Amino acid sequence: MSKVGIIGLGHVGSDIAYTLCTKCQVDELVLIDKNKEKVIAEYLELTDSMMMTEVKTTILLHEYSYLNDADIIVISVGSQSIDNEDRVSELSDNARSIRQVVPKVIASGFKGIFLVITNPCDVITTLVHRESGFPAHRVIGTGTSLDTIRMKRVVGEKLGISGQSIGGYVLGEHGESQFVAWSSVTVGTQKLLEFTKLSEEELEEMKEATRLGGWEIHQRKSWTSFGIASTVSRLIQSILKDEKRIYPLSIYHEVENIHIGYPAFIGKKGIIKSLSLDLTSKETVLFEQSIAKVKKYVNH
Amino acid sequence: MSKVGIIGLGHVGSDIAYTLCTKCQVDELVLIDKNKEKVIAEYLELTDSMMMTEVKTTILLHEYSYLNDADIIVISVGSQSIDNEDRVSELSDNARSIRQVVPKVIASGFKGIFLVITNPCDVITTLVHRESGFPAHRVIGTGTSLDTIRMKRVVGEKLGISGQSIGGYVLGEHGESQFVAWSSVTVGTQKLLEFTKLSEEELEEMKEATRLGGWEIHQRKSWTSFGIASTVSRLIQSILKDEKRIYPLSIYHEVENIHIGYPAFIGKKGIIKSLSLDLTSKETVLFEQSIAKVKKYVNH
Amino acid sequence: MSKVGIIGLGHVGSDIAYTLCTKCQVDELVLIDKNKEKVIAEYLELTDSMMMTEVKTTILLHEYSYLNDADIIVISVGSQSIDNEDRVSELSDNARSIRQVVPKVIASGFKGIFLVITNPCDVITTLVHRESGFPAHRVIGTGTSLDTIRMKRVVGEKLGISGQSIGGYVLGEHGESQFVAWSSVTVGTQKLLEFTKLSEEELEEMKEATRLGGWEIHQRKSWTSFGIASTVSRLIQSILKDEKRIYPLSIYHEVENIHIGYPAFIGKKGIIKSLSLDLTSKETVLFEQSIAKVKKYVNH
Amino acid sequence: MSKVGIIGLGHVGSDIAYTLCTKCQVDELVLIDKNKEKVIAEYLELTDSMMMTEVKTTILLHEYSYLNDADIIVISVGSQSIDNEDRVSELSDNARSIRQVVPKVIASGFKGIFLVITNPCDVITTLVHRESGFPAHRVIGTGTSLDTIRMKRVVGEKLGISGQSIGGYVLGEHGESQFVAWSSVTVGTQKLLEFTKLSEEELEEMKEATRLGGWEIHQRKSWTSFGIASTVSRLIQSILKDEKRIYPLSIYHEVENIHIGYPAFIGKKGIIKSLSLDLTSKETVLFEQSIAKVKKYVNH
Repeated sequence: MSKVGIIGLGHVGSDIAYTLCTKCQVDELVLIDKNKEKVIAEYLELTDSMMMTEVKTTILLHEYSYLNDADIIVISVGSQSIDNEDRVSELSDNARSIRQVVPKVIASGFKGIFLVITNPCDVITTLVHRESGFPAHRVIGTGTSLDTIRMKRVVGEKLGISGQSIGGYVLGEHGESQFVAWSSVTVGTQKLLEFTKLSEEELEEMKEATRLGGWEIHQRKSWTSFGIASTVSRLIQSILKDEKRIYPLSIYHEVENIHIGYPAFIGKKGIIKSLSLDLTSKETVLFEQSIAKVKKYVNH
Repeated sequence: MSKVGIIGLGHVGSDIAYTLCTKCQVDELVLIDKNKEKVIAEYLELTDSMMMTEVKTTILLHEYSYLNDADIIVISVGSQSIDNEDRVSELSDNARSIRQVVPKVIASGFKGIFLVITNPCDVITTLVHRESGFPAHRVIGTGTSLDTIRMKRVVGEKLGISGQSIGGYVLGEHGESQFVAWSSVTVGTQKLLEFTKLSEEELEEMKEATRLGGWEIHQRKSWTSFGIASTVSRLIQSILKDEKRIYPLSIYHEVENIHIGYPAFIGKKGIIKSLSLDLTSKETVLFEQSIAKVKKYVNH
Repeated sequence: MSKVGIIGLGHVGSDIAYTLCTKCQVDELVLIDKNKEKVIAEYLELTDSMMMTEVKTTILLHEYSYLNDADIIVISVGSQSIDNEDRVSELSDNARSIRQVVPKVIASGFKGIFLVITNPCDVITTLVHRESGFPAHRVIGTGTSLDTIRMKRVVGEKLGISGQSIGGYVLGEHGESQFVAWSSVTVGTQKLLEFTKLSEEELEEMKEATRLGGWEIHQRKSWTSFGIASTVSRLIQSILKDEKRIYPLSIYHEVENIHIGYPAFIGKKGIIKSLSLDLTSKETVLFEQSIAKVKKYVNH
Repeated sequence: MSKVGIIGLGHVGSDIAYTLCTKCQVDELVLIDKNKEKVIAEYLELTDSMMMTEVKTTILLHEYSYLNDADIIVISVGSQSIDNEDRVSELSDNARSIRQVVPKVIASGFKGIFLVITNPCDVITTLVHRESGFPAHRVIGTGTSLDTIRMKRVVGEKLGISGQSIGGYVLGEHGESQFVAWSSVTVGTQKLLEFTKLSEEELEEMKEATRLGGWEIHQRKSWTSFGIASTVSRLIQSILKDEKRIYPLSIYHEVENIHIGYPAFIGKKGIIKSLSLDLTSKETVLFEQSIAKVKKYVNH
């Protein structure tokens, strides 16, 4: 039986639960939030919604002890309200929540994988790693996975083709200092910059459209959730089914001792191994700047 | 190509759009809301979320003219905030919205089916029918479809079996005066009351749990959406695929000249025909009371 | 992790495997057939086919030891070629296969549920029960589940509505002596015979169309598989997800000490309990005749 | 409404129909085979199988006139029995079938896209193009799409990662003269040959495992179908939803006036445009040899 816990049932956590139930991806779901009434409301909603389908997920409420044999715990506590603008401002509140939640998870005997969404994602993922004492491969942040999807959408729209035929990665912080590693971007398997001519201005425009993707949504709707919910649902499938596929995620950087966005293979044991991209010198500088920013906030 | 419009992108309308995209049920989706920024936000969210899947729905924004060849228009305008308590209080605001929206739809040349969610559902559906001048079979309210699902869940939980093996209907107003037609409730194909002994108190408790189902969610979360979104997604499939399956819906009552909750077959032409239930005299009285309540508000 | 074994990879077993992989219903699949080359071919086909989707099922080959911790084993050994005509003629060959296969399963330490398709289904299910020494609730035959679906299709076509809004059961042997329990058949939750007038001739015609449903396919295509594959896929979901829904299945009849087609609730422990239908005296006679036929072959 | 015709209901055609119905990808399906009894059998099977699901596809039988407004016609006529060994031996029989079938399709007024599976695929696709008089972008063969999937599986297995994170193409004839364009093969977006060291022998072994993929299945099971059925189901989705994604397909080569395997974007208008791969000189020679082979048989 596959079992996933979600801690934090704001818009993001709730929409993840709904997506997992709709797609029937897990056998058991454990829902936890400090607002217990919200948990009950979501339980009733999810149960109603599954009655209209051929799927069933068993839903357990409130108790950390249920997490004992979970495969994955999604950490979506704290305010998710500021998405792409400056996620760092949310740090102290969310860090406090993490320091309350993680020890309770550890006390449950949980031996699975942490999947962290709470912003600032790289800083919080680093914090979960340190607080839990887990091996690094079992602590993963969603990092630039959704930013990467936005980049593919933006490039696809520019070229008039499906973003799903675009490859490549947004790297670094899930925040202001992220960047598109253009050297990694492909159309099919061809390098983007060999496939078609694009000016520096066009690249910069696409980078900005990517970086502001979440912010564009947030300022119009006050939160974002469907995009991250679908992303997390895909990552959960990849872990539960031991797919060993590549995603850009907030993963552990051994030298710098923080988590930061970089592509890696994931499976049932978490991060299997990271790639070794051949970044340009310009990209390397951007990556180092992004690392520096995350380190600063981690050591804040 | 199947095409569905959603007018009104509050929690309900947005979650319907997300559900339809996730399940890849329609080829084209038209999103309209007086808050155009919200429409753009949902467009971006939905586009991001589809990048992580094997599905694609084309999304069109803002223009009533896109509804010209739509198969179905979902009406989810207005405040959905008060769900099961007293939907009638929302009447005047929502009626005003309907009187603005329906003429624009008609002007588009739309020839499909209205599926109305806006509360008070039966009153608003009646209003859409009158404002549109459409034949009655092409104006449908979600009525007691979700209440019926809640009844099945409640009965299933009581008996320790799947609510999906429970049959039967909640009838009348999607509101306070609704009632469970116990004479129609089955386990498999056996009458519930022959399958097991249940006291009057137990039946009354289950009826109340059903009626308060939405309210229980609403007071804990301030809105309800996953349950109705899944229900609407199923009804849309039933219409688009011409399934000719039975659902309790807000349908036209010729004698009383209003829409009210009663089971009917639906397909691509809308309501094909209603059933003729053999209600008990007690149930008949309750149905008449519910009709009287809806009529009162329609003629308000 | 959910795990299902399939023993016997003829058309039926192979199409079940393909359906389970396509719908991503199980985490692990164990494929066994005395023709090991066929197993390898299906493994390669299934692996290729999953590459085009977002799903993944791990496939294990050949070894009974893999069945140790399986949740369900599907028994589809033997010739499935004669479907609805006279399944009893296949008895001795298939019984011999069962006597070879079941002890190997038992030796693996398997503690799950047998789901038997091999024809004559009720006789073979009885045999699996006896050979395995398993408690009766963990040995289930597909019995009249597919016949019941065909009845619903036939009735739905007659009435011009969806067969999915038809309730009721085909009872008795999955073979010549089966019968439609018309007293159980419903439209929505109304009794069919109250919903509409149908003559004895019309009922008899529909019963014959149901009984010959498999034969109509078999004589045109030499085997049947898609219908039973979809049925088995649904039953597996119902067991794995502990749905507690009602299906007509070949279940244990304590008094007669055989398995025979009758509706029951199923879940992760197998048969939870059977219904108690209120059959007419005519239907009771038909059920007894069907029991007598199965008993005769069991004791053959 | 989306509408797909399948002409030729052998193992491949039937399994495509089953896959499309299971995934609910099309609204209407037209089934045609010179063996009308087989068509009826598949109709009954598919109808039975859909009763167990929440999906519905309307199925039409026998008449070419139903193809008038179809979006896509799948051509799977003729013996599919010899898959990867030497597909050319099937040429004359299958060419004769094509010359009978295509005029009837044209007479129906069909204005959609031909998707050709019949082997030898490139030769038959060329023939369909010529017989139909259709613009080249509306005649597509499945070509090396399945071979490419097998290459990805083989490379993924070699590296211990998901084949779905492998990019690249098998080019040329869907037959003996096909080749892996190693210069196009990627892991994530890195060139395979930069990602890891592989000897010439290892590459050759993987190429042979790819080329013989179908043959390995065919010699053990006498036909192949699940792999191609899933591939065709994906391609149909890509066309119907106007995805504009890249697949290697048998597409028109203007200079040589034949169809041959090469990557292209597809959407609702068929082939949108092909890529321009930067092949090595060795690969260019292999591609020319493959073209020469197809031309020889086309002009046979």
